[in-house]
Amino acid sequence: MNQAKLNEFISNMTLEEKIDQLLQLTGDYYKGSDISTGPSSYMKFEEDTVNNTGSILNVLGAKKLKQIQTEYLEKNRHKIPLLFMADIINGYKTIFPIPLGLGSTFNPDLVQESAAVAAKESAASGLHITFSPMVDLVRDPRWGRVMESTGEDVYLNGLFGAAMVKGYQGDSLSEEGTLAACVKHLAAYGAPEGGRDYNTVDMSERTLRQQYLPAYKAALDAGCAMVMTAFNTVDGIPATGNKWLMRDLLRDEWGFEGVLISDYAAIAELMAHGVAEDGEEAARLAIEAGVDIDMVTPVYVHNLKKLVEEGKISEQLIDESVMRVLQLKNQLGLFENPYRFADEEKEKELILCDEHRSLARKIVGESLVLLKNEGALPLSKNNQNIAFIGPYVDNKALSGLWSIHGDTDQVVTLKEAVLEKVEGSQFSFAKGSEILDPDTKISGFANVVEQKEFDPKAAEADLKEAVELARKADVVVLALGEHFIQSGEGGSRAEITLPEIQLELFRKVHEVNQNIVVVLFNGRPLDIKEINEKANAIVEAWFPGTEGGNGIADVLFNDVNPSGKLSMSFPYSVGQIPVYYNAFTTGRPLKKGETGHRFQSRYTDIPNEPLFPFGFGLSYTEFEYSGLTLDKKLLSENEKLTVSIWVKNIGKYIGKETVQLYIQDLAGSVVRPVKELKAIKKIELQPGESKTLEFDITEEILRFYTASMSFESESGKFKAYIGSDSDTELFEVFELKK
Amino acid sequence: MNQAKLNEFISNMTLEEKIDQLLQLTGDYYKGSDISTGPSSYMKFEEDTVNNTGSILNVLGAKKLKQIQTEYLEKNRHKIPLLFMADIINGYKTIFPIPLGLGSTFNPDLVQESAAVAAKESAASGLHITFSPMVDLVRDPRWGRVMESTGEDVYLNGLFGAAMVKGYQGDSLSEEGTLAACVKHLAAYGAPEGGRDYNTVDMSERTLRQQYLPAYKAALDAGCAMVMTAFNTVDGIPATGNKWLMRDLLRDEWGFEGVLISDYAAIAELMAHGVAEDGEEAARLAIEAGVDIDMVTPVYVHNLKKLVEEGKISEQLIDESVMRVLQLKNQLGLFENPYRFADEEKEKELILCDEHRSLARKIVGESLVLLKNEGALPLSKNNQNIAFIGPYVDNKALSGLWSIHGDTDQVVTLKEAVLEKVEGSQFSFAKGSEILDPDTKISGFANVVEQKEFDPKAAEADLKEAVELARKADVVVLALGEHFIQSGEGGSRAEITLPEIQLELFRKVHEVNQNIVVVLFNGRPLDIKEINEKANAIVEAWFPGTEGGNGIADVLFNDVNPSGKLSMSFPYSVGQIPVYYNAFTTGRPLKKGETGHRFQSRYTDIPNEPLFPFGFGLSYTEFEYSGLTLDKKLLSENEKLTVSIWVKNIGKYIGKETVQLYIQDLAGSVVRPVKELKAIKKIELQPGESKTLEFDITEEILRFYTASMSFESESGKFKAYIGSDSDTELFEVFELKK
Repeated sequence: MNQAKLNEFISNMTLEEKIDQLLQLTGDYYKGSDISTGPSSYMKFEEDTVNNTGSILNVLGAKKLKQIQTEYLEKNRHKIPLLFMADIINGYKTIFPIPLGLGSTFNPDLVQESAAVAAKESAASGLHITFSPMVDLVRDPRWGRVMESTGEDVYLNGLFGAAMVKGYQGDSLSEEGTLAACVKHLAAYGAPEGGRDYNTVDMSERTLRQQYLPAYKAALDAGCAMVMTAFNTVDGIPATGNKWLMRDLLRDEWGFEGVLISDYAAIAELMAHGVAEDGEEAARLAIEAGVDIDMVTPVYVHNLKKLVEEGKISEQLIDESVMRVLQLKNQLGLFENPYRFADEEKEKELILCDEHRSLARKIVGESLVLLKNEGALPLSKNNQNIAFIGPYVDNKALSGLWSIHGDTDQVVTLKEAVLEKVEGSQFSFAKGSEILDPDTKISGFANVVEQKEFDPKAAEADLKEAVELARKADVVVLALGEHFIQSGEGGSRAEITLPEIQLELFRKVHEVNQNIVVVLFNGRPLDIKEINEKANAIVEAWFPGTEGGNGIADVLFNDVNPSGKLSMSFPYSVGQIPVYYNAFTTGRPLKKGETGHRFQSRYTDIPNEPLFPFGFGLSYTEFEYSGLTLDKKLLSENEKLTVSIWVKNIGKYIGKETVQLYIQDLAGSVVRPVKELKAIKKIELQPGESKTLEFDITEEILRFYTASMSFESESGKFKAYIGSDSDTELFEVFELKK
Repeated sequence: MNQAKLNEFISNMTLEEKIDQLLQLTGDYYKGSDISTGPSSYMKFEEDTVNNTGSILNVLGAKKLKQIQTEYLEKNRHKIPLLFMADIINGYKTIFPIPLGLGSTFNPDLVQESAAVAAKESAASGLHITFSPMVDLVRDPRWGRVMESTGEDVYLNGLFGAAMVKGYQGDSLSEEGTLAACVKHLAAYGAPEGGRDYNTVDMSERTLRQQYLPAYKAALDAGCAMVMTAFNTVDGIPATGNKWLMRDLLRDEWGFEGVLISDYAAIAELMAHGVAEDGEEAARLAIEAGVDIDMVTPVYVHNLKKLVEEGKISEQLIDESVMRVLQLKNQLGLFENPYRFADEEKEKELILCDEHRSLARKIVGESLVLLKNEGALPLSKNNQNIAFIGPYVDNKALSGLWSIHGDTDQVVTLKEAVLEKVEGSQFSFAKGSEILDPDTKISGFANVVEQKEFDPKAAEADLKEAVELARKADVVVLALGEHFIQSGEGGSRAEITLPEIQLELFRKVHEVNQNIVVVLFNGRPLDIKEINEKANAIVEAWFPGTEGGNGIADVLFNDVNPSGKLSMSFPYSVGQIPVYYNAFTTGRPLKKGETGHRFQSRYTDIPNEPLFPFGFGLSYTEFEYSGLTLDKKLLSENEKLTVSIWVKNIGKYIGKETVQLYIQDLAGSVVRPVKELKAIKKIELQPGESKTLEFDITEEILRFYTASMSFESESGKFKAYIGSDSDTELFEVFELKK
């Protein structure tokens, strides 16, 4: 459809009809599911509005969506099709690891493939748009939604954000099996104070621009169709009513012309924030900020008309927003085919097909992070008496909180995978304990408290059985973790340890058998000091999704050599938060391992270093780094400098390694991070094989927000670090001369 | 001396001599003490420099200082006297409670008196300037230096900062017994990331101006002579080299014309921060920012001359700084009398005199905060078998870390005070445990680890003795706490609990006697959940100083009814940090006590509320609040609105109460705090007595940094809350119409 025709729509629509285009309703209004992540009292609408609303949230299934679209178009005067949007975060029906696990792959290509699979499945199910990627930078593991981010690094988040956009959107939205992407949450939703979800965010504009904004921009540069606002404040003003953020920055500075949608009920929440006295003011603030779609609140519908009629806002503002919504519908081809790729046959064929499962399994393999190994891993397929113990041994709840469309039944448990992989007469399996402590009260979606009644006798029997099996085993695999509802949206925790009941299980097992491999399931970095002290090996498995059991079994038995790297630091304890690799030195730095004196920047009771740093992850094989070389020591503008490193697999297994390039700017007009990740290369090496890797350094990657807030590089000395993680001490110095 | 004469000095001085005026040396160079709070490698200077240096740090004593001044003037070509500065934080020899305890008095008049006493004692000892008040706003109890602040509220910090300045400086610096004050640390030193001392500070300019800057300004408005820079960065640039902060804001916007001194070695630390490549750049950044005095580094001395000679800075910059130093010396009357108030006789007479001790005792009484009381308090002087147990029962180390000039011998312990106050045959005393756990490694000043070798047998005997005494007692007073070196500068803790050895003592005592009164000694809010659950009563005693024992005994036996109020919230646990009363509502607020649903701003495992909120503190009597009335509902500019409240002592003891006025701005162009303290009135009421209190509200106190960053009020509705703490729910609504 051409622009003239879209203009015609606008000319022919009543003001009410236009405003209804800016409303998004939940599935309840369309016999859909009721997945609400906010107060439901907002959701009272007239039938007329329902019949004209612009988009629907979280309803899926080809048959149902086709039916809804058909019925809708029958009633809609202008025959403007509905948009179907949903939260497809880490897969639709084939569930991939949570984004924090995807981040640990350090493999954007693979993550792009996972997004493409999610798009294929859900496009066939009739969906048009997904609220992904989430590229919020995260430094506080108390926040439940760190599971939905790819981690603490702005460069990595930008890589993954762009990869996901490309995966969802393909080369063009007219391509079959594509979805429009919606990058979120603009801006800095990942920095709520105290890690408490929805809490105030406060930071300097410098930090916002340097650390938080670039990943959103990277997703937009990759062509992302939509943007979602954040719940939080940015410089004292909630993002959803923040004109500076949404007009000056997003539209004017970045040139974004697509649809901007509020997060769930965020326009109405301008009142709770105390920047709007009433719905009218909330509507005015949001539309003036350029928020096109009001997600599930009646604020736009009840107030925009009056605001226009009273001359408080211009109708032009409404028209602009409606035009962006119509353009998106047009871009998706809905005027030509309102059902788009909804196809029951295709749906059946694609969903959870072998190819998708196989990709999911591969990604689990690359997302697992081997945190410690003193020899218990890999497990042997022969003649080892292995006891698999723990509440996650035979548990299908292996998907993160946002995997709302996945079927738990389809998940492969660790036990199932092990029995499938190895003739298992020498294996034993036991639950050992519940996941949650008896007194834990926590609800998932729809406010359902998910714990069963605690049965002390059964608990005792579970524990006893586990200890007996452990006593007889050569090696114990302990599958422990958080409950999946402990992380995700609304899942903030002030304590980030494992539930006490599981630590008790760990201790009792450890008393009878010290050869323990712990496999961890969790949506955030945890305080695992005690586990780390006592276990022989630790595998971080995140929430791995549908193929979780298989992917983990592949790694445990070395059908896949683990290659994941942490994309978020594991703090030593909750009292160390925030801890992240690209901090500043301070004026009184304490070097790692240094004793120092009282008056250096440090805690008196714990180390400054995290338990496991960003970029860290072991392999069953070993990689030797040597011959770090710069092709020159002096870099000028418009040139490049090449840094090369020789990496050799000196162990006995084939393995993958992510080689990481970090830069430190030794002096600037403002303080500069001790290290900044600038490039990654993931390679595979056979035992004995070696490779020389080259990384290019240009003036461009040395730019930052200087004292005067201009984004540019400054002449001076830099260190180029290369290594296996952010702790690497292998570097060469070069100089930039402008 | 007139300005012309000062100008003449500058004309006659060589560049080297001028630069030496900008150096401050430690006492080592003058046979003084060696109190260093930074790396000591900086401190290598030529004799010539030592003979011309402008000021000396932390040397005290009338005789010694007179001698140093005499010898110095003999060698100094221009006969410009030395300035003697020192850290007189909460008293010189008569030690008052740590500032966090002073904050708890909610009584600026009393704190002004304490500053006047500190000034009198140390002026007689020959001192000219103290590095106080410290008005850094603090929200993170992990930071060791919260003990040195009066707390988390900008208004209260401003009141106390101004009170201390008036106390030190009197009406004029020519008045006998005055000291020049130096407000610190500009700016926002109290907000180091992760509560780790010296760490990066990052916040919006809005938060900086709204919450952090006003208290420094309040101290300057009270006439404070000097300012000290902060160690941390402000918007990416270390304060000590931050031209925006020190020139644009401090000098131009605020009009400050006095001396600006670096914190200890902070100019040299510009190199460690990575904003200066070498000493030359560090010197240039600092002098350009307008830092007049270089505290104990050779950076100015070694680099300023070269910078001037090479034309990189103008000599005018040096001259301006030297003039400020000379003007301060002149203001202090040193050209007329270089010994100023140094007087051995006066020194003997004043130091620890009865009057000073008596004030200290009174202030301890008002600084104690009764956190809980289920009836165990007050103690009876007659016929009660009271067991006083704990490492703080007979311990003289009751002063905070910065009480460096105090004599521990002079401190009255709790045991001494109790025996003095009450015929004590029915009392027993026991140590019960050491303060620190056996494995705690922590050093105080001069890197000395203060723990003795741990003796398990003695520990067991101590514990046993204590439990036996507790068993037989009617009531147990358990005096527990942090070691004083666990807080203060360089005393950051990632855990904020009591040492385990003391918790163990508490548990064992609790097993045999539940009638426990805990008296806490600590330099920060602690996580005292367990104590709060099990103890009958809790008295927060901070580090109370010289008269600690007496002040506490006064309160325990109700010779003084406790009236302290927390000036810093006590978090529920370390995972809740930061928690402070004047936060923002968020878009998804959870009201206190509300169950709510998953998608509200909260932790899933702990409450949102602190264990004890700002402003909280009980009394032995009870105060009833009623009749909250506004004299009108509408406020215009240039008018005032009066809010009145009737307060009655309905208990059986005479007591003091701090009545607190909070305001909430219900809607603004930016988010507004849920409450802001705007006024306090501390009153005393006899049993049955009542008083009507009035508070004036003007447009002026409703101003804030609006969306456009102008400091002004906005029309709209406000709540005026009055009550006994920041949790008060007693309010009336009024409207501002401009």
